[in-house]
Amino acid sequence: MDLERNLNIARAAARLAAQNLKRLWDVPRSVTIKGDESLLTQIDAENERILSEYLASETPDFGFLGEETGIHAAKTSDAPYWYVDPVDGTSNMVHRFPWACVSIGLVVSGKPVVGVVNNPMQGHEFYAAEGMGAFLNDSPIHVSKNTAFERALLATGFPVGPHPSGVFPNLKNFGAVSVRTHSVRRPGSAALDLCAVACGWFDGFWEINLKPWDTAGGTIIVREAGGIVTGFDGDAYDPHVPYIIATNGVFHQTLSDIVKKDG
Amino acid sequence: MDLERNLNIARAAARLAAQNLKRLWDVPRSVTIKGDESLLTQIDAENERILSEYLASETPDFGFLGEETGIHAAKTSDAPYWYVDPVDGTSNMVHRFPWACVSIGLVVSGKPVVGVVNNPMQGHEFYAAEGMGAFLNDSPIHVSKNTAFERALLATGFPVGPHPSGVFPNLKNFGAVSVRTHSVRRPGSAALDLCAVACGWFDGFWEINLKPWDTAGGTIIVREAGGIVTGFDGDAYDPHVPYIIATNGVFHQTLSDIVKKDG
Repeated sequence: MDLERNLNIARAAARLAAQNLKRLWDVPRSVTIKGDESLLTQIDAENERILSEYLASETPDFGFLGEETGIHAAKTSDAPYWYVDPVDGTSNMVHRFPWACVSIGLVVSGKPVVGVVNNPMQGHEFYAAEGMGAFLNDSPIHVSKNTAFERALLATGFPVGPHPSGVFPNLKNFGAVSVRTHSVRRPGSAALDLCAVACGWFDGFWEINLKPWDTAGGTIIVREAGGIVTGFDGDAYDPHVPYIIATNGVFHQTLSDIVKKDG
Repeated sequence: MDLERNLNIARAAARLAAQNLKRLWDVPRSVTIKGDESLLTQIDAENERILSEYLASETPDFGFLGEETGIHAAKTSDAPYWYVDPVDGTSNMVHRFPWACVSIGLVVSGKPVVGVVNNPMQGHEFYAAEGMGAFLNDSPIHVSKNTAFERALLATGFPVGPHPSGVFPNLKNFGAVSVRTHSVRRPGSAALDLCAVACGWFDGFWEINLKPWDTAGGTIIVREAGGIVTGFDGDAYDPHVPYIIATNGVFHQTLSDIVKKDG
């Protein structure tokens, strides 16, 4: 496979969708909350259409798995698949907290080999391809070199609520990691959290409720930046399993020992 | 008092310090973790010097309370005080997660009347003066109109760790709010969280461990944007009390009923 060509295709597709996200973000702020939610739907749907059309035209033999339209099977069972999140950080977008992105991963036999995460509100384009390194706006990026867990800055996410049961998933993990580290952030976009690990802003990230399109792009970016991505309990990373741990490598075992699937 | 003049002085001072923060942020990423912490000290100290010198030259009769150098008493007991955080979001800055700011509040008899919060990494300048409204980059801002608590997006913060006792302050509050709302963010800068409430990105914010310089600037910005800021348990806001609740007004009683000082 020509990884460089597919990386360039993914970058061009993500850029188109990111430009659309930014264009629609700037509509007047007098739009109501209800209007915001319509807009969310409109941006999600438009972005997925932009991405699926572009990717299908450039790579007609590849499959496609998108958050909004589901799976479009490839013609052959061994073909690569594009895993696409047209907007990751949707709650932020609805509230206009400027932290959201377009995420694309190219997956071969369950393994991401190309990833692009474009955050147009920050002007951040993260990308990577297997064996070619990871980049932010064309500069190479690397995971942190921090070796002191008690000084680590990590990130996590939680399933959106409300939770009428009164039980908040991942809360015990959040407490257990927080008492042993410097701090844990919760910015609200898993794809961007993975990229933040890749460029060393965060020393690690975990989450328990993710979808394949949330993590496929970011995972290869972390790995090419020198980090480690796995599931929980020592499992290998699988985009179709909702548990993920990504670190600078140094903290992988320590963080894996703390966080629990039911924590 | 000439509020507009003092607002312009605070904006000019914050801009100088914010430019310095951005300039030093861009030093090469090969700096070590230890070097990062030296840099943190350097930026903090330099910014406080920039701010204290500028403010003293423009308002020689005012007092000054800064995170790094403490209190510089005014000549008269009834004089206004500048409350200054030379860098809010220090952990983010050390790790280069681009979410940090310079915060200035002008406090008269314990009440903030002018506020400026400048986040140079985002190009966001928030400011307000009593009776004059609140602004982001010269556009008026307003708190959200959201009335459904179960759809609210809120924010909070936590004391930095580690916490060898194993007890993580504010964790119960975080869980109790999270199960009843859409989501709770934790970006890592109280001053910016307050500004995010002011411009409607977040519907509310609370925290239990703040210093006067963290909240004085943001509080007047929230109030001038139409929001409410108080302490816990129905107490009035006091910058010297570490408990704060800021909302769009609609959710103030509901959030106040949930969060506890020991929660």
